[in-house]
Amino acid sequence: MNFASDNVTGVAPEILAAIAAANDGAAPPYGADAITARLERRFAELFEHEVAVFPVATGTAANALALAALTPPWGAIYCHQEAHIATDECGAPEFFTAGAKLVPLPGDDGKLVPATLDAAITGAGSVHQVQPAALSITQQTEAGTFYRADEIAALAEVARRHCLALHMDGARFANAVAGLGCTPAAITWRAGIDALSFGATKNGALAAEAVLFFDPAKARDFALRRKRGGHLLSKQRFLAAQLEAYLDGDLWLRHASRANGCAARLAKGLAVLPGARLVHPAEGNEVFIELTEPAIARLAAAGFGFYRWGEGPRLRLVTAFDTREADVDAFIRVASGDEAVA
Amino acid sequence: MNFASDNVTGVAPEILAAIAAANDGAAPPYGADAITARLERRFAELFEHEVAVFPVATGTAANALALAALTPPWGAIYCHQEAHIATDECGAPEFFTAGAKLVPLPGDDGKLVPATLDAAITGAGSVHQVQPAALSITQQTEAGTFYRADEIAALAEVARRHCLALHMDGARFANAVAGLGCTPAAITWRAGIDALSFGATKNGALAAEAVLFFDPAKARDFALRRKRGGHLLSKQRFLAAQLEAYLDGDLWLRHASRANGCAARLAKGLAVLPGARLVHPAEGNEVFIELTEPAIARLAAAGFGFYRWGEGPRLRLVTAFDTREADVDAFIRVASGDEAVA
Amino acid sequence: MNFASDNVTGVAPEILAAIAAANDGAAPPYGADAITARLERRFAELFEHEVAVFPVATGTAANALALAALTPPWGAIYCHQEAHIATDECGAPEFFTAGAKLVPLPGDDGKLVPATLDAAITGAGSVHQVQPAALSITQQTEAGTFYRADEIAALAEVARRHCLALHMDGARFANAVAGLGCTPAAITWRAGIDALSFGATKNGALAAEAVLFFDPAKARDFALRRKRGGHLLSKQRFLAAQLEAYLDGDLWLRHASRANGCAARLAKGLAVLPGARLVHPAEGNEVFIELTEPAIARLAAAGFGFYRWGEGPRLRLVTAFDTREADVDAFIRVASGDEAVA
Amino acid sequence: MNFASDNVTGVAPEILAAIAAANDGAAPPYGADAITARLERRFAELFEHEVAVFPVATGTAANALALAALTPPWGAIYCHQEAHIATDECGAPEFFTAGAKLVPLPGDDGKLVPATLDAAITGAGSVHQVQPAALSITQQTEAGTFYRADEIAALAEVARRHCLALHMDGARFANAVAGLGCTPAAITWRAGIDALSFGATKNGALAAEAVLFFDPAKARDFALRRKRGGHLLSKQRFLAAQLEAYLDGDLWLRHASRANGCAARLAKGLAVLPGARLVHPAEGNEVFIELTEPAIARLAAAGFGFYRWGEGPRLRLVTAFDTREADVDAFIRVASGDEAVA
Repeated sequence: MNFASDNVTGVAPEILAAIAAANDGAAPPYGADAITARLERRFAELFEHEVAVFPVATGTAANALALAALTPPWGAIYCHQEAHIATDECGAPEFFTAGAKLVPLPGDDGKLVPATLDAAITGAGSVHQVQPAALSITQQTEAGTFYRADEIAALAEVARRHCLALHMDGARFANAVAGLGCTPAAITWRAGIDALSFGATKNGALAAEAVLFFDPAKARDFALRRKRGGHLLSKQRFLAAQLEAYLDGDLWLRHASRANGCAARLAKGLAVLPGARLVHPAEGNEVFIELTEPAIARLAAAGFGFYRWGEGPRLRLVTAFDTREADVDAFIRVASGDEAVA
Repeated sequence: MNFASDNVTGVAPEILAAIAAANDGAAPPYGADAITARLERRFAELFEHEVAVFPVATGTAANALALAALTPPWGAIYCHQEAHIATDECGAPEFFTAGAKLVPLPGDDGKLVPATLDAAITGAGSVHQVQPAALSITQQTEAGTFYRADEIAALAEVARRHCLALHMDGARFANAVAGLGCTPAAITWRAGIDALSFGATKNGALAAEAVLFFDPAKARDFALRRKRGGHLLSKQRFLAAQLEAYLDGDLWLRHASRANGCAARLAKGLAVLPGARLVHPAEGNEVFIELTEPAIARLAAAGFGFYRWGEGPRLRLVTAFDTREADVDAFIRVASGDEAVA
Repeated sequence: MNFASDNVTGVAPEILAAIAAANDGAAPPYGADAITARLERRFAELFEHEVAVFPVATGTAANALALAALTPPWGAIYCHQEAHIATDECGAPEFFTAGAKLVPLPGDDGKLVPATLDAAITGAGSVHQVQPAALSITQQTEAGTFYRADEIAALAEVARRHCLALHMDGARFANAVAGLGCTPAAITWRAGIDALSFGATKNGALAAEAVLFFDPAKARDFALRRKRGGHLLSKQRFLAAQLEAYLDGDLWLRHASRANGCAARLAKGLAVLPGARLVHPAEGNEVFIELTEPAIARLAAAGFGFYRWGEGPRLRLVTAFDTREADVDAFIRVASGDEAVA
Repeated sequence: MNFASDNVTGVAPEILAAIAAANDGAAPPYGADAITARLERRFAELFEHEVAVFPVATGTAANALALAALTPPWGAIYCHQEAHIATDECGAPEFFTAGAKLVPLPGDDGKLVPATLDAAITGAGSVHQVQPAALSITQQTEAGTFYRADEIAALAEVARRHCLALHMDGARFANAVAGLGCTPAAITWRAGIDALSFGATKNGALAAEAVLFFDPAKARDFALRRKRGGHLLSKQRFLAAQLEAYLDGDLWLRHASRANGCAARLAKGLAVLPGARLVHPAEGNEVFIELTEPAIARLAAAGFGFYRWGEGPRLRLVTAFDTREADVDAFIRVASGDEAVA
């Protein structure tokens, strides 16, 4: 009954089993193991493209290390003003890039549009200003919405024109792929993405993300950055095993579909309540909704976990791979005032 | 049959079971869970002292973050010239401290002595030189030896006189406690240690270390540093669960005793071979030994894993919590030329 | 006839003479000279307060070093969105602070107001967000306006409530003191300023600024930061001599008054032209004005130096200590179309 | 009568005159002036090679910025253990490189030899170790000696083999060129140097050094680094004017020859005294000599400025462009005990 975040969840049984299965005697450390080797090939097949794969344990590490590989210390990184990298990582991108500048930009429903980006890019060639270096977008966005492939391509066109590298924070990438019904390639390298933070933790892994580079040249030195950042695990096979199990049998997409479905059900059920208003389209596994204060009070009293979000009686509700429809329905019932289920 | 390193091992069954047990529904993320809360109390009891506990996933992160909390960017960190922080972390301490300088010092058997440290400390008060800031020692040392409590206290006396903070890299701390038969307190805060990188990964955990500060004031801002470094796990309960199981029923000391015992057996059996010579006393779970080239060739042919170390026919052999005496004996037999066991 | 910037000027004769006078045999290097010693006392008298004085050669160094002394790497520095530190220093504050985050805020006429600041300060105590650390304001602002003492005090009240240190970028501090007719103390420490970048270069020095700390505790380690940043001059007496001559006989205020007077004359003469509109009040030595495109074309053809500023037919015109009234009048005449003086 | 350092000197009259001459009305700021333009051509002629020229105000800035351009944050910079960059810049190279590691190496008379360098270079290709990146040598060395062209070429051969960039700290470059009687090219790019910190301050400038890159590709981004480090002077013409005057009519070589001559005279006169012993050959403008304690006491009593250097009764004596032979002779007389001249 916890809709506070997808990071309150535990580990999917398949992934726990894969960790146990990987625990089979000695194995070379630091990613020289067989599972890591398989994983790189697996990602290449999934993305239909050569890809350099770097497993790490946290999303903040994935984002900050990826941006550091794409941006010089004097670079500007353009992003949405609500981007996780700008608001929730305690300056990790600034730390790993040795002081690059994040340029926060506005955009409806958590998404940037080309004109906004284009207008914001300044200073190229002037020693007095930080130099345009990278664009980072989030897929699924922080507003629970998706960029369509053509929307990404349009941003990439602007980025290319200004020689920006293009990063995608994919902490909830699975939700976007599942929700859009597209291939992973369609919304990444085919649309112009250079590097992807491929998330698994929020969608059922214990602690596993992967930084993917579609252009190996951009990955140059990444292994050194990762080690230097303390993000190279000695027993890396257990990271790789999580990711392998995550991809096996499309577990990642089944998880995401379930989470998305629960969010859609939640949004549908809540949006019709008196005084309710969806703040953003609920495309993925997050619902941003305005409810009445009495409804919020009932939900809190009933023991549901959730966050108030921004000003006024607004909530962010997050579903996950293990959300039960019964809990969704209970939430709606309590919000509606029909009953107060504990 | 792999004596290359203790990081080629897998996970102890008790620790894997603890991870599975922690996978029990939703839990607050980022260390606000119940297991993390228990863990801090547990460490306080173990060390007989108030202690701030920060779990992280790698030893490099533990060391670099701890040093960054103890050292300004213009600080000098004194350490043994073979210290892991100086030779094997790709400059992570320099990265996390924003450019502090490691001052490598010589010392027999991997250990520093007070006179060497005292003579090396210079520059205090001069703006032209980096400022003496911290001493970092390794316990068990990189040479497989131990600092006795009074040896640490003698170094701490020099450190205090020069206002140095005192860090211990305890990636193999368990081996030292088990081997010395002392309390954890005796070789840490009672001897003058301010911060300890408490290792578990090399001794049976999946990926779990903890940074401990015995003076909470030194831990100020550490939580921010950890997050900013990408080292705060969202599902931190699974880190905490590993550490809890590691301490439960003295698993950590039983593991370390077994590894130490195997190393002693190995050292004893090899040292008497013709042409063999122990390079350092084999006090913990590492044996540094000179063998003959034919012996080394036989061992390689038999499929044993090990590293050549430094110049000449020298090996580093590492035992671990899961090393079998039969493998130790087989290694000795092959080295002796009695038989070549595959 | 150059109104492009006050940094196109040369050196005032008095300051050049002081450099020559300081060239008198050997002197201790690195600020241990007699002139530097005098200078600290001189600043203390001028500001009616104990003050730590650190001469440096550039304004960017002064600002970035001062901010680094006030802000941890995970700190947020609030500033106006047109602040020099945010837009014209190529990320120097991020570099010297090891990755702090500048938070740009809007405000009319280059000035922040308390409510804007108060609303922007978030995240204190959360490890996920950078921590409120400092406020930096510019006096004379980048819009050519002044903060009154009570306006600074009102900002300082907000800053204190949120435990922010308060920095003033005083690249054109002289213009503000001269224009407001106040004491230096009134708009610095008496109003709550902790550290001041005291500029001289734009107002007649060759290359000389000073970082002043009104609380010596905030200056701790500053000497090390300056040296480490390469900003400690060996022959520092020549920096100190510039600053001493700058203060002698109120040269700095006479210079600033003349520049301010020329700007006022320029603003007055231009504002009445058809199609002209002052963009900001011309309080100091800068005039931001909208003219007609034909007028701008005439000025360019006549060889006047100036910058277009922002969108549309807007200019920034800067006067300096050596601006001649005749040039001001010529500029106005050409803008008015009366004649095109070469 | 001050032999403490060449940085206790003032400014040569020719250079002061050049500053005054440059003070001729308005000029474009930030290096867009005519003198800076001339300077780049002048250096190209002097070095018989295309060269990118970046004036800065301090030697520490020149060295640290140059090394940052040649070394990634995870790079190793090999240098002599007495190198100024390693011992006297408060970690500026670590700061500007974002945490590279200086590897101090031994060598007689302040000079590295190829075998020492070759043996020290390790770790290439391993993510666990910092990566070999640059060699920095000092010419004139910190021991007052010179590298011959063939000695530099031999070091460069090792450097090239290991893909190291090659930096020369030329704070006293003039003394080496004058003393060796070679061309500037012979001991720089012709011998394999990539970047040179060309010093002028110690040899008669007010505050002026230049970073020279012989391969423009290595200078890429340098202008951004300089600005971001606060080392781009707005009135750069006054830096350029110093350097131009320094080169004009071989002023730099005449200065250096005089200083070298005085040092040779000093060394010759002192070396024959009872109990005296030259510690290093006095090739340039520094004399490292062991005297008797009574001699040292007499010199101090007579008011001579000098530094004791290292252990025992050793002195470092530095001559400069303005040292008078009469003072040299007086020093020798006092040291010899003939008389105690005030």
